[in-house]
Amino acid sequence: MTKTKKNKIINDPIYGFITLERGIIFDLIEHPYFQRLRRITQLGLSYLVYPGAYHTRFHHALGCMFLMKKAIQQIRNKGHEITEKEAEALKIAILLHDIGHGPFSHALENSIVNNISHEHLSSLFMNKLNEEFNGKLDLAIKIFNNKHPKKFLHQLVSSQLDMDRLDYLKRDSFFTGVTEGNIGTERIINMLDVVKDKLVIEEKGIYSIEKFLIARRLMYWQVYLHKTVLSAENTLIKILKRAKDLIQKGEPLSSSKSLGLFLKKNYNLNDFTKNQELLEVFSNLDDHDIYSCIKDWQCHSDIILSYLCRSILNRKPLKIKIQNTIFSEQIVEKIKQETKNKLKINEEEVQYMVFTEKVSNNAYQYSKDRLNILMKNGDIKDISDASDQFNIEALNKTVNKYFLCYPNVPNK
Amino acid sequence: MTKTKKNKIINDPIYGFITLERGIIFDLIEHPYFQRLRRITQLGLSYLVYPGAYHTRFHHALGCMFLMKKAIQQIRNKGHEITEKEAEALKIAILLHDIGHGPFSHALENSIVNNISHEHLSSLFMNKLNEEFNGKLDLAIKIFNNKHPKKFLHQLVSSQLDMDRLDYLKRDSFFTGVTEGNIGTERIINMLDVVKDKLVIEEKGIYSIEKFLIARRLMYWQVYLHKTVLSAENTLIKILKRAKDLIQKGEPLSSSKSLGLFLKKNYNLNDFTKNQELLEVFSNLDDHDIYSCIKDWQCHSDIILSYLCRSILNRKPLKIKIQNTIFSEQIVEKIKQETKNKLKINEEEVQYMVFTEKVSNNAYQYSKDRLNILMKNGDIKDISDASDQFNIEALNKTVNKYFLCYPNVPNK
Amino acid sequence: MTKTKKNKIINDPIYGFITLERGIIFDLIEHPYFQRLRRITQLGLSYLVYPGAYHTRFHHALGCMFLMKKAIQQIRNKGHEITEKEAEALKIAILLHDIGHGPFSHALENSIVNNISHEHLSSLFMNKLNEEFNGKLDLAIKIFNNKHPKKFLHQLVSSQLDMDRLDYLKRDSFFTGVTEGNIGTERIINMLDVVKDKLVIEEKGIYSIEKFLIARRLMYWQVYLHKTVLSAENTLIKILKRAKDLIQKGEPLSSSKSLGLFLKKNYNLNDFTKNQELLEVFSNLDDHDIYSCIKDWQCHSDIILSYLCRSILNRKPLKIKIQNTIFSEQIVEKIKQETKNKLKINEEEVQYMVFTEKVSNNAYQYSKDRLNILMKNGDIKDISDASDQFNIEALNKTVNKYFLCYPNVPNK
Amino acid sequence: MTKTKKNKIINDPIYGFITLERGIIFDLIEHPYFQRLRRITQLGLSYLVYPGAYHTRFHHALGCMFLMKKAIQQIRNKGHEITEKEAEALKIAILLHDIGHGPFSHALENSIVNNISHEHLSSLFMNKLNEEFNGKLDLAIKIFNNKHPKKFLHQLVSSQLDMDRLDYLKRDSFFTGVTEGNIGTERIINMLDVVKDKLVIEEKGIYSIEKFLIARRLMYWQVYLHKTVLSAENTLIKILKRAKDLIQKGEPLSSSKSLGLFLKKNYNLNDFTKNQELLEVFSNLDDHDIYSCIKDWQCHSDIILSYLCRSILNRKPLKIKIQNTIFSEQIVEKIKQETKNKLKINEEEVQYMVFTEKVSNNAYQYSKDRLNILMKNGDIKDISDASDQFNIEALNKTVNKYFLCYPNVPNK
Repeated sequence: MTKTKKNKIINDPIYGFITLERGIIFDLIEHPYFQRLRRITQLGLSYLVYPGAYHTRFHHALGCMFLMKKAIQQIRNKGHEITEKEAEALKIAILLHDIGHGPFSHALENSIVNNISHEHLSSLFMNKLNEEFNGKLDLAIKIFNNKHPKKFLHQLVSSQLDMDRLDYLKRDSFFTGVTEGNIGTERIINMLDVVKDKLVIEEKGIYSIEKFLIARRLMYWQVYLHKTVLSAENTLIKILKRAKDLIQKGEPLSSSKSLGLFLKKNYNLNDFTKNQELLEVFSNLDDHDIYSCIKDWQCHSDIILSYLCRSILNRKPLKIKIQNTIFSEQIVEKIKQETKNKLKINEEEVQYMVFTEKVSNNAYQYSKDRLNILMKNGDIKDISDASDQFNIEALNKTVNKYFLCYPNVPNK
Repeated sequence: MTKTKKNKIINDPIYGFITLERGIIFDLIEHPYFQRLRRITQLGLSYLVYPGAYHTRFHHALGCMFLMKKAIQQIRNKGHEITEKEAEALKIAILLHDIGHGPFSHALENSIVNNISHEHLSSLFMNKLNEEFNGKLDLAIKIFNNKHPKKFLHQLVSSQLDMDRLDYLKRDSFFTGVTEGNIGTERIINMLDVVKDKLVIEEKGIYSIEKFLIARRLMYWQVYLHKTVLSAENTLIKILKRAKDLIQKGEPLSSSKSLGLFLKKNYNLNDFTKNQELLEVFSNLDDHDIYSCIKDWQCHSDIILSYLCRSILNRKPLKIKIQNTIFSEQIVEKIKQETKNKLKINEEEVQYMVFTEKVSNNAYQYSKDRLNILMKNGDIKDISDASDQFNIEALNKTVNKYFLCYPNVPNK
Repeated sequence: MTKTKKNKIINDPIYGFITLERGIIFDLIEHPYFQRLRRITQLGLSYLVYPGAYHTRFHHALGCMFLMKKAIQQIRNKGHEITEKEAEALKIAILLHDIGHGPFSHALENSIVNNISHEHLSSLFMNKLNEEFNGKLDLAIKIFNNKHPKKFLHQLVSSQLDMDRLDYLKRDSFFTGVTEGNIGTERIINMLDVVKDKLVIEEKGIYSIEKFLIARRLMYWQVYLHKTVLSAENTLIKILKRAKDLIQKGEPLSSSKSLGLFLKKNYNLNDFTKNQELLEVFSNLDDHDIYSCIKDWQCHSDIILSYLCRSILNRKPLKIKIQNTIFSEQIVEKIKQETKNKLKINEEEVQYMVFTEKVSNNAYQYSKDRLNILMKNGDIKDISDASDQFNIEALNKTVNKYFLCYPNVPNK
Repeated sequence: MTKTKKNKIINDPIYGFITLERGIIFDLIEHPYFQRLRRITQLGLSYLVYPGAYHTRFHHALGCMFLMKKAIQQIRNKGHEITEKEAEALKIAILLHDIGHGPFSHALENSIVNNISHEHLSSLFMNKLNEEFNGKLDLAIKIFNNKHPKKFLHQLVSSQLDMDRLDYLKRDSFFTGVTEGNIGTERIINMLDVVKDKLVIEEKGIYSIEKFLIARRLMYWQVYLHKTVLSAENTLIKILKRAKDLIQKGEPLSSSKSLGLFLKKNYNLNDFTKNQELLEVFSNLDDHDIYSCIKDWQCHSDIILSYLCRSILNRKPLKIKIQNTIFSEQIVEKIKQETKNKLKINEEEVQYMVFTEKVSNNAYQYSKDRLNILMKNGDIKDISDASDQFNIEALNKTVNKYFLCYPNVPNK
């Protein structure tokens, strides 16, 4: 980070330089809540497959803000008003949109707390920061929650084509080295326009949008849902579950104080609103809390827990099979039986070792908000109508895959 | 170019260094027929839209050879034999696959000679070189013409996934700056395998193939068939046509000697086989022959010719409209009438100024050779069956577009 | 080129997108004088060594303008005034700074006209355009000629660290693939400041400046003065000289009309000011005029001319030796004698075939304008004092090399 | 990671794909000792300044091996024998050259153990692995320790131009986004040759070597010794020191079991050789051990420890001043006094808060092994003689800088 007379400049291997303006933006970045994001990886355990993928939520948030500035500039150039106050609020909203993420981002989203999405937690953090900053985040929070009358501003923060997606696809592609996931961020932003308070893409940007949808799908199957990543991240979930079970049964288990609290009890959104302290404790959590546990637990006497921890640390993930149809009960049962025999574990214990889940992805969700194309004649068309290649059925189709994990225990 | 003890190394902004082995490969590259490709741009007049797009057939051919070496290595690693002689032949075949291109590559493919594809001319050149090199190109020619029993070798030179396409998409994307057209060349080559004498792609490369097909389509509409490029290249065709007409009517028109021959008469394939000299004359042609003509002709007394030449030189291409349906005769007639009045030209002359054409593209041609995917269970599936996203109808659909060009004559 | 509502956007493989504002800037770019730069390569015959190096003066000029906009923004951010009028003038001045270049840029700078630098010709073109545009270029011309009171503005256009150098090093490095010549353009611009009407670099940018000086030197020896390029470009100079001699002796020699004029007579600056037409004729010249000549002349009966032309076209440049000391007269004489014998040419003719020249380069010219570093304590130091590595002697040292060219005639 | 029939392929954002061969190489990579490197960052706390710099020793080691393969190929192409066994040994040696690094790489090199360099520890690990792999590492260890008669092999592993440096400069430049530190790895490797059992660089690679030396220097001052990084890493050292002091005084302090051992006692090389267990305990350490401590200790009752820990976690490093001369005792004393008063700490405690150190760098160490240039005439010259720019004095000059750290305590 380099100080210039007024602003700070940060080197980004993707965009070159990102300028941080002095003022509220800068102060938010300096806040411990935000600095914590430096210790939360963007892609959980994907680095086990893609050894470059250690980039963090911190870096991603700065990248989003950089793109937001570009988008604001473009939309203003097209003749639409975005006031200075709105511009600042947009930058704040995108900067903080992921601040509620816990350790390992999505991978542990439902393992540390109960049924609380990271967006919920982001909202809680924003409100807390708003108090600290004397209401200066009011407008940002309104836009984040889509309560501001200018609806297209919310779309820049959260929609099928928000700055979040534009940054994460580009960034994840860059750091994993999966160059095929790269997208034409700059061109897409140049094609942005606003019609009737809706974000639209100019017709000549249609191929870039198609490319974006395909790249997103490719990244899902090749990176986010890569089978080794799936196996490792689901193993991590089982580790947390096993730890909670053991602790809640009274078994002593080392951990940081903050993580300990969340292992001992399953907190829900209600708990967070009733108990202000809880958010503060949550704000202490990051990837290191989990790592120090699994490093410690790899020698624990519970063979389930230690087995699973070692599988992550030494990169020997559970074996995994993926198929398009559900796994038959017989097959699952058979593997469970074999595993029980080989590892001499019981029915309850085998649940942590042999399990099956579903993963889904659809490139585009027609039912949610639309990807609108502004045709040259002024019409607005949904991308699935505007594209001569994509058809709505294929785009809308949710692709489900099923996977089965189990330990690789050699036969005697 | 830098000499090492044995080989020459060439800097390529895309692949880094390309090594040229001493021997026949090196001698072919030194031959004037091949050196001529330095003076033929890969993308015709696309540089009028993409000012970086001046790369040449020479550079492309070297790139293809570089990829061919990688592919040979991969396929051998997978346990399939490619003999040393076959490897050399493959490199020769891909090096020379475009040697028959005339000035401006595809743009003038049917304007200088009559109904002779550049592949035909490449064949003629290869035969000629084979004589000079005492039969050392025999096997390369066999592979090029698909007469060699190992059919998959021909596929590396010419098929839906040949080294030609892998290089040109990457290269054209690079030099135009249309980054979205970039493809995962290296990954695709790593996924190549051979089953029953057919080139296949391993299943886990399926997303890269989807990406490749989408990128190809994107490059077609965004670069190769960009409307300004379409207008300019069709204008160029009209210039040649007008010049031929004038010359054949006896009008004196300056040109290089070699080009003059082809302006005076329309030669067909038969002429080339009867008259060995013709190929030699053709081998003198490159982009400069055309440029020096249009530079000279911009002052010609024929107002059609001079108007069209100036429109290229000063980048004032004819106006162009593109639509998905054919242009009605009334509209075309109306514009012709207006143009005749404004420019005071007659019915014959207006044909050069106002014209309509069709352009087509389909991402994948099911009817031609297949893009085969090797499934994990050993099955071979066509990409359209193997992909859960693409469907055969959409892929196979030929997209037709129609364009109408006309001069931009301001009203008085 | 893509139209948005107001501006045009151009894809640049280096910077991404370059926006062209409507108005005078846009109109200048559309002018035939400027469009001509599309047909003048930036690096002359370097493409014979670096096959990607076909980029043009047109592309470079747009790149410079892009950087100028960045620089203006930075300097304003540091609290220094650059008025809107000055900003426009800066963009015009940098856009047109190379408009006087003739075919092959520097290679033929003294072959077509006599002792007229391209800067002189750029001035003539700017004055001409200023007339056409009713004085709108007044301020740009003042800045270009360093007649504007704010001196630092001129430095942005022409100095040791102007936008010209920042662009050409980056661009030439990119297209040649000599990645080591790449420079930190963006960082350097971020470090710009102004003190007492002088451009300075903040102290923490010192390593970037050192890097820039080294990269520049590397590009000189590895690209601009690469021995094959030296040989080829000096051969080109001899071709022009021979052609002029033959023509001036009355020998008929084909060429474009415009080039013909300059072959027949050696014009100087005085001729250009007396005869307004001359500039117009010069504005018709580009690389194609030269190419069509050498293509035609390769069959000319003068064996000197035809030999040299073929050596360029078929990439068989004259052999070249480079050394740090001057070549002894005996050696030169000996080679001349051998060449005369082998090729059966006379003393006058051998001057075109065997010749020796000096090339020089120094990384930094202390005597000219300075590269000023703004130290943290507010002092201004010359880079050679501020750097702990570079010393003034080494930086200032002019490196001279000598080369000797001669034909590669095999012994019988 | 993708399996092909025989090998595994890893995506590297820098080199594209790295192939891991089955066999000993693959088995070493799978070993927990090597997998541990996934949890040790290459650049310690540099990510506080360069938010992309989270890459690991694991990634770097794979990169080195990739370059080693290229170098082996080149040197063989130049006609020098490297047997298959030697090639494997070279790959093993470079893969394991950094395996002895502890948490935060260099930053804590002398804080966890006493006077044991990471090279020493690497040696210990290699010997241990050699036992496990039944002597298969014999030759690799010989080469690593320069006991193999072919001396140039050792130079590929460790010298002024080894594969280690070629990878880390490129990789650190890539992930920090300091593009100016990028080097021409591929070109340098292409220029490698061997003369009289010594690694040399062909003369025409001289500019690349100059560039490499300059880039290395730039990376030192701009990244490795960046003042904020210096401050943060020295703070980290003080944290470890403080923790050791407290523990050794009997103060209870949480930590992982393995780290605890090293906090309680200062082990030296002798201890490691006497007690085989110690290495095993050391092999459990990685960045997470340190992080979980400083996260926990930020609330410790010792105000020195908690202050320093918070300064890292919240990115509020100690203030730092850098200058070319030593700081006068008076100044240091004055700041210590102020700090003592403000923070109400004693003389012993202030040592952790206010301290001064020296950092040094010289681009090239003439006294150590040489960077030999193979001149065209066959002579071997040291780079400082061969280069017309660099002079031996400047290159050899050790640049010393001094820094002073102190807390930023606002005046009341």
